[in-house]
Amino acid sequence: MTPTIGVFDSGFGGLTVLRALLARLPQARFAFLGDTARLPYGSKSRRTIARYAAQSAQFLVREQGAEFLVIACNTASALALDAIQGAVPVPVLGVIEPGAEAARAASRTGDVLVIATDATVQSHAYSAACRAQGMRVLEKACPLLVPLVEEGWTEHPVTAEVIRIYLDELTADAAAQGLNPDTLVLGCTHYPLLRPLLERVIAVEVPGGMRVIDSAEAVADAAARQFGVRISTGGRDALSVAAEGRELGTQTDTSPGLRCFATDSVEKFERLGSRFLDRQVGTVELVDLGG
Amino acid sequence: MTPTIGVFDSGFGGLTVLRALLARLPQARFAFLGDTARLPYGSKSRRTIARYAAQSAQFLVREQGAEFLVIACNTASALALDAIQGAVPVPVLGVIEPGAEAARAASRTGDVLVIATDATVQSHAYSAACRAQGMRVLEKACPLLVPLVEEGWTEHPVTAEVIRIYLDELTADAAAQGLNPDTLVLGCTHYPLLRPLLERVIAVEVPGGMRVIDSAEAVADAAARQFGVRISTGGRDALSVAAEGRELGTQTDTSPGLRCFATDSVEKFERLGSRFLDRQVGTVELVDLGG
Repeated sequence: MTPTIGVFDSGFGGLTVLRALLARLPQARFAFLGDTARLPYGSKSRRTIARYAAQSAQFLVREQGAEFLVIACNTASALALDAIQGAVPVPVLGVIEPGAEAARAASRTGDVLVIATDATVQSHAYSAACRAQGMRVLEKACPLLVPLVEEGWTEHPVTAEVIRIYLDELTADAAAQGLNPDTLVLGCTHYPLLRPLLERVIAVEVPGGMRVIDSAEAVADAAARQFGVRISTGGRDALSVAAEGRELGTQTDTSPGLRCFATDSVEKFERLGSRFLDRQVGTVELVDLGG
Repeated sequence: MTPTIGVFDSGFGGLTVLRALLARLPQARFAFLGDTARLPYGSKSRRTIARYAAQSAQFLVREQGAEFLVIACNTASALALDAIQGAVPVPVLGVIEPGAEAARAASRTGDVLVIATDATVQSHAYSAACRAQGMRVLEKACPLLVPLVEEGWTEHPVTAEVIRIYLDELTADAAAQGLNPDTLVLGCTHYPLLRPLLERVIAVEVPGGMRVIDSAEAVADAAARQFGVRISTGGRDALSVAAEGRELGTQTDTSPGLRCFATDSVEKFERLGSRFLDRQVGTVELVDLGG
């Protein structure tokens, strides 16, 4: 019996995490839930977010049989990881700890920058996680990046200019605080689509460059390590399957072991989702979680 | 007894409508509700939006004693005006009809362009209202403009470039369809903050120029006409008071007759609201509408 990994986001940005998981654990089955009826979580109180996230996690575990959960949502990871872990009897991974750990592994100076949405920055979850790893950290909210990605302007001159402005502000603030950052964490599930452009802007604008850490990749690596050994895959352990999956890479165009769910209008999910997943999302099933 | 006008939006963009109302009806009392816990309405189903909007309208009428309602929200006006009118026993004005009527009064060619959010465009409410006035119309979703306004980049070169790109696409599409538009309707309550920049871009990019119709101004004019004569103002009719209000203009820095409410975290409302209202918002009171 192939195990199911439940992946949860308030919207569909978390499909970048699912993409990274599919590449590492191609033998697993996946159930993705976007709680689109109640997004954005970022403007809501911690109590409300915890309630929504717990309901979503319970749907994936009880209705879809998920044996592992990945919270592919920075806001829910920041504000509701404990609540989710208390609501379901399966292992749960958030997106923030693995991002901080990957930054720690990548950084030589120990000083890192984090870009994210306003809500994630205000939670200071990345700051806390990075400091717990012994790093110094500066976070910046970049509220224009999500709408630019959703507009499809991932290689647009306007987006390059916006990135340049945000990066200039961030590196100037870092210098003013005496930091010497060599690593930039993408603290939003939309940002992996901007990675090629971001790296080109960094190459021009930041003397010495910067390592870019993608939280989506980081949490998928952590999931492959943590869940992989417990995923039975016909006698082989999951890590070898994962390695094989990476070699197969993007040859997989369809994912028979994937079901996608959303709590409200699925049209935008289906329309934009394939860009995030890097393959067809297929039919998105509508579910009602109440509230 | 001074009457109270209730003004409702899913967020705080509708404060531009409140600003226009305050200028025209300075003697009235106002209660503004932003249903921030449940925004954005645009991604939700018609039935859900109708339920949320009716609850919000009932709060303004039952709890705040509003005798008139202005729906300062394009999505709610497009999808829930009937539901709101059925839910409360007071006159209700939406933002779309007045915008279409103002466009009809301004346009010589009878061909108009509408820019709005994705949700408003998909509702085709402006198209229907403009066609009912005998006009030909082309709508365009401009999803980057709201985040640019909320970032405070209302005079920024990036915003000018985004406006230029959107306007070029829109006028090219209009030409391809044989339209000869001379009027542009701002179909989103955030856009009045971009009006100066928009008009400068139009002056450069659009041969012959275009009249800009601000739906916030249009609905406030309609409210002054429709509610004004029924608003008792010490023996004078409301229109003369309104004219006086316009003369006094921006001299009024405080609004003792104004209360603002929101259904979730009030911080962003208080922080950004004064830009939309063009004066201090003051304390925003938190209310719980359930759901």
